[in-house]
Amino acid sequence: MAKEKKLVESITSMSEDFAQWYTDVVKKAELVEYSGVKGCMIIRPDGYAIWENIQKELDARFKATGVQNVYMPMFIPESLLQKEKDHVEGFAPEVAWVTQGGLETLQERLCVRPTSETLFCDFYAKIIQSHRDLPKLYNQWCSVVRWEKTTRPFLRSAEFLWQEGHTAHATQEEAEERTIQMLNVYADFCEEVLAIPVVKGRKTDKEKFAGAESTYTIEALMHDGKALQSGTSHNFGNGFAKAFGIQYSDKNNELQHVHQTSWGMSTRIIGAIIMVHGDDSGLKLPPRIAPVQVMVIPISQRKEGVLEKAAELKDRLAAAGIRSRLDDSDKSPGWKFSEQEMRGIPLRVEIGPRDIEENQAVVVRRDTGEKAVVSLEELETFVGGLLETVQADMLARAKAHLAAHTYEAKNYEEFRDLIANKPGFVKAMWCGDEACERKIKEDTTATSRCLPFTQEPVGDTCVCCGKPAKKLVFWGKAY
Amino acid sequence: MAKEKKLVESITSMSEDFAQWYTDVVKKAELVEYSGVKGCMIIRPDGYAIWENIQKELDARFKATGVQNVYMPMFIPESLLQKEKDHVEGFAPEVAWVTQGGLETLQERLCVRPTSETLFCDFYAKIIQSHRDLPKLYNQWCSVVRWEKTTRPFLRSAEFLWQEGHTAHATQEEAEERTIQMLNVYADFCEEVLAIPVVKGRKTDKEKFAGAESTYTIEALMHDGKALQSGTSHNFGNGFAKAFGIQYSDKNNELQHVHQTSWGMSTRIIGAIIMVHGDDSGLKLPPRIAPVQVMVIPISQRKEGVLEKAAELKDRLAAAGIRSRLDDSDKSPGWKFSEQEMRGIPLRVEIGPRDIEENQAVVVRRDTGEKAVVSLEELETFVGGLLETVQADMLARAKAHLAAHTYEAKNYEEFRDLIANKPGFVKAMWCGDEACERKIKEDTTATSRCLPFTQEPVGDTCVCCGKPAKKLVFWGKAY
Repeated sequence: MAKEKKLVESITSMSEDFAQWYTDVVKKAELVEYSGVKGCMIIRPDGYAIWENIQKELDARFKATGVQNVYMPMFIPESLLQKEKDHVEGFAPEVAWVTQGGLETLQERLCVRPTSETLFCDFYAKIIQSHRDLPKLYNQWCSVVRWEKTTRPFLRSAEFLWQEGHTAHATQEEAEERTIQMLNVYADFCEEVLAIPVVKGRKTDKEKFAGAESTYTIEALMHDGKALQSGTSHNFGNGFAKAFGIQYSDKNNELQHVHQTSWGMSTRIIGAIIMVHGDDSGLKLPPRIAPVQVMVIPISQRKEGVLEKAAELKDRLAAAGIRSRLDDSDKSPGWKFSEQEMRGIPLRVEIGPRDIEENQAVVVRRDTGEKAVVSLEELETFVGGLLETVQADMLARAKAHLAAHTYEAKNYEEFRDLIANKPGFVKAMWCGDEACERKIKEDTTATSRCLPFTQEPVGDTCVCCGKPAKKLVFWGKAY
Repeated sequence: MAKEKKLVESITSMSEDFAQWYTDVVKKAELVEYSGVKGCMIIRPDGYAIWENIQKELDARFKATGVQNVYMPMFIPESLLQKEKDHVEGFAPEVAWVTQGGLETLQERLCVRPTSETLFCDFYAKIIQSHRDLPKLYNQWCSVVRWEKTTRPFLRSAEFLWQEGHTAHATQEEAEERTIQMLNVYADFCEEVLAIPVVKGRKTDKEKFAGAESTYTIEALMHDGKALQSGTSHNFGNGFAKAFGIQYSDKNNELQHVHQTSWGMSTRIIGAIIMVHGDDSGLKLPPRIAPVQVMVIPISQRKEGVLEKAAELKDRLAAAGIRSRLDDSDKSPGWKFSEQEMRGIPLRVEIGPRDIEENQAVVVRRDTGEKAVVSLEELETFVGGLLETVQADMLARAKAHLAAHTYEAKNYEEFRDLIANKPGFVKAMWCGDEACERKIKEDTTATSRCLPFTQEPVGDTCVCCGKPAKKLVFWGKAY
């Protein structure tokens, strides 16, 4: 018998060591390989194909709202980065600097973009003159660099891929509307495509983006009860416009500053897919984002007619618009099952000599392990329907997990107890004072995740200081 | 009457100053804006939309041959870049160096990738063990940096976008086959989609890629008779594999070095589209690559029903799968025509009150200026068919231009005369000696563009030294 290409090695169980489980999955599902540059990852074909599907879905949703794509330089001159005070303070400590070009030392250092607000502002100052030039709704897909000390694949890396939208508007109202609109695009995408429910809300001033007037966020809950900030949308007001001199003449021919937004989602979201849906057998991909939705696996493939039949089923599924593959390698069916499970492929179709005789196939769900025997006549219909069921069930399970791990705390004792012993979100009231926010973080390592849009008070007083409360906050430990 | 948003300024004519014409077109068709970083360009929505269409077409063609996409880090440690001697010599003088990360000085400099052979080799050395792991057919879409002194938008810039394919194979034959296969993908794409005919051939040793065993190229001829290298495909043999230790165990369990290829096409090709097809009214986009194929322009749009009818026509065309827009701005029809021509939109549909009365529209070709009156019943069919005709005619004209500007030289006097006075390719025989190649370049500034696959000798002796000739060469001045 042919030598197995490699063992499907067992991975650390989630309950034993969640962090190690995560690392095992990204490595063994072949999503990522480490590179020779500290903190920079190689995204392998199975990982990149997920990102391609994310891009395709998000890009279509952006364009449906009138957004156009552009490409800005990857370098930012130091003087340009320094134009907006809060912004440079937020980013300068974590950027990579180019100081030499070819054989010469540069007169001015260039930073490799950590984000491109300053470049877009410089560009907008050039191309915006009149109210007729507004709004500008630009986006770019690119890589950015942030010199992080501690890195983890997808979750925090020195270089990562993302999109960054940057818009300019005539009024503050319009900018605010766009900020919320794009947050909703992210939230809908997460729910509808990634089967990840999110909490939508505003960041506190302490947690907002460097240079923003307000930052909105979607927060997802991972399987271990930690939060992951999964997408953000910022309203800059006219702060950047004033720093960069971006003005337009309005209908009365008077000069006004534009109001701006920016919003981004990154490869970090792949970390969320892994940590929301995965299990001890590996990755579990929601069908709508899975690069391969169905793996056809022949049983006793050396028996006459089996491989041919398996190939025929794969072709039929592909013709029905289902992303399908055939595993005709010389590994045993058991190994193939384990690999398909590790890679998170939503369904497998098993077909062997007896199935052929009975004109049937066995369809197995990755999410539940459930098996069904299907007549070959009904294969495409059954598989197509089952993929939708799997998608819906995965979202339902993630929603149930979020609900079951969202707690309420009325006082500080309860709060500390929940944060220490019940991984998840804790809803608690807050006075609005940054001092309480800082104290909570020091005492518990939990941070304010957001002030949710849906404000349903759970009390009248701040959970920390006991003074009158202003807002309900979702608190939690976060990635 | 409303103030015009901006004038459609006249551009320099091609015959007066081709270089200035090019700069005017990229600027006034709003493809590119200059940035604050020398040699780095901002690709604006109309430019980037062309690149998106190029990506979509090429990516599908790559994937049809089994290629998978990945993403590699943008940084290369200096020690890694130095592993292959020829390669580092070729690229080190023109890379940008990162020397500081955050607040710290790096222990080892990192170069911003000028190309990623070294990264792929490092990766392949890790993941290739057995003949079962071969071939590896990876590609990435990314930006690269080359610290060029003299830059021009698309043609030569410090940063540009491209794809770079990198493959690893068990045998030299298989690597050679893949090298030629990808060159053909590029050539077919240029002809079928961009309406650009190319000359396919091999580069001389002097002109080949740093580290390659052989480099193949497609060469296109611009309107001014200069050549543009438009895509390259390299066979590395096992040189990189030896430098990086990329080995696999073959079927007899013996260790072998892999054989590698790489191949790339960049945003430079947008420069070719401009310079092959454009004219004194601006850009001229082949329909298959044009982001907008048809602009519907209402005449007397304030008359009742005109705007509604124009919008209806635009919707009908869009429903028929034709990329259409409506220009309902408050500019005059004349301005709108000029803008549509400047932007290279292949067709415009004019519709006014009299047309509505007659149940017709006027369709005007960008490539020839030809007008046709079409019954509205036949609009989609007519426009769809005309787009195909325009595409075919643009290719035919480019082919005719290439043929009319390809000359033959039998001796050095003829050769120098042609290069000096007849912009275009000169076919001439070559002895194979690099000395002659250098002399020709010194005497005429022309370079060997390629040794064409179709070798039809035009003589027996080297056009430069008169010794026996080995090969037919296409010579020309180049961008």
